[in-house]
Amino acid sequence: MIVISERINGLFRSVGKAIETKDEKAIQQLALDQIKAGADVLDLNTGPGMDNEPEVMAWLVKTIQDVTDAQLSIDTPKPEAMEAGLKAVNKRAMLNSTTAELNRMEALFPLVKEYDAEIVCLTLDEKGIPNDAMKRNELAMLMITTAMGYDIPVDNIFIDPLILPVGAAQNQGPAVIDAINMFKMLSDPPPKTVVGLSNISNGTKQRSLINRTYLSMLMGAGLTAAIMDPNDEELMKVVKTGDILLNKKLYAHGYLQV
Amino acid sequence: MIVISERINGLFRSVGKAIETKDEKAIQQLALDQIKAGADVLDLNTGPGMDNEPEVMAWLVKTIQDVTDAQLSIDTPKPEAMEAGLKAVNKRAMLNSTTAELNRMEALFPLVKEYDAEIVCLTLDEKGIPNDAMKRNELAMLMITTAMGYDIPVDNIFIDPLILPVGAAQNQGPAVIDAINMFKMLSDPPPKTVVGLSNISNGTKQRSLINRTYLSMLMGAGLTAAIMDPNDEELMKVVKTGDILLNKKLYAHGYLQV
Repeated sequence: MIVISERINGLFRSVGKAIETKDEKAIQQLALDQIKAGADVLDLNTGPGMDNEPEVMAWLVKTIQDVTDAQLSIDTPKPEAMEAGLKAVNKRAMLNSTTAELNRMEALFPLVKEYDAEIVCLTLDEKGIPNDAMKRNELAMLMITTAMGYDIPVDNIFIDPLILPVGAAQNQGPAVIDAINMFKMLSDPPPKTVVGLSNISNGTKQRSLINRTYLSMLMGAGLTAAIMDPNDEELMKVVKTGDILLNKKLYAHGYLQV
Repeated sequence: MIVISERINGLFRSVGKAIETKDEKAIQQLALDQIKAGADVLDLNTGPGMDNEPEVMAWLVKTIQDVTDAQLSIDTPKPEAMEAGLKAVNKRAMLNSTTAELNRMEALFPLVKEYDAEIVCLTLDEKGIPNDAMKRNELAMLMITTAMGYDIPVDNIFIDPLILPVGAAQNQGPAVIDAINMFKMLSDPPPKTVVGLSNISNGTKQRSLINRTYLSMLMGAGLTAAIMDPNDEELMKVVKTGDILLNKKLYAHGYLQV
């Protein structure tokens, strides 16, 4: 499974401060720590309410690219900040994210095509997040067919069924598992899938246990990638064990050490 | 999920000794320990190569029934020992197990009908354990339709897709998940499912981690029951967390303490 680090986000106080003061060393160390912990992709989010977000996103990309060639995910709702990030990125970027709203897709899919980027597609439209798997599947289908109209390969698309906190919307836990299973039927090869994992445990008292149990369930259903905290060692053990159990990596007694 | 304790098995040295010496206290304490740890059902296996197995099975049942009314599973390949166990049981028993071999089904299904028992049906026939999900599904269908010929309700049937050790047959991990998903389509309501969980980690160095990651995956696919070790506390936390995530038990901050 692809591990996308959620930690380079201005919402975390220390990261917000490093961004504000343009502290290259702190940002670079954070990026290297994520990769060392097992991240395959680094999600970059400047944090909310930033006036000069395009400039800051470009700075984040360049600063991190100076120390690693890991794939970067440009995480912002603003098309201008996305484009600034895309221009700064040396290799294929991931865009995080579009919704199924027509104006969002019309703004972002041309960028996806131009830069051959990957894009996270949230199953969400003007009416909000659907409360069942079937409707999520319809929105996924709408985004895939719209992307095809822009000549974007399905292989560049990551569908995100949108996890909700188990303490607030408990019936959505199984709905998201069902959705992941349904998405597999949408195309051949199937679209990739991604979740923002930590959302499931928001507000609970057993965050790591809930995150790793749910991640196992989603991996079993075929999840491709998760935006998550690679510094949670027990969670990373589950990622490695899941890849073994799904026969994606060869079993060896010392597989946890790899 | 239904937790079936695997611990009352003559294969464990201390249990074998307690059975041999007819140590009622030791067996009763073991049974109570399993229930306290969270077992819903107690699987009873006298151990291999027992001359007077029917008599010993009846003794095990009676001894344990004196201290608990938990459901009991009569685990033996011998029809005579099964019938002796069934006769001794006060309430509905589980039989563990039949295969898809005609002579096994012909010997056991009449007992299942007569005693309104539940039965574990292993997807296995004269050719051995199939190495893909589709063939497991065919054997499941064969056992369900044969049981129907004996007027046994689908509700009394637990299909077991037979887990193999990840270190020895790694491609069977995803095959069993696929099989659990396929079984759901066999009838409406779907047949129940069960696995012998510990088999997945046989011979590995991370037994509990592998057991609980795989159990989460199987629960996500809809598993009804697992024969497992309820004394593994981390594994039991996963059972409780899985039931919460699948919306089978109501979330509360203190759900682990329930």
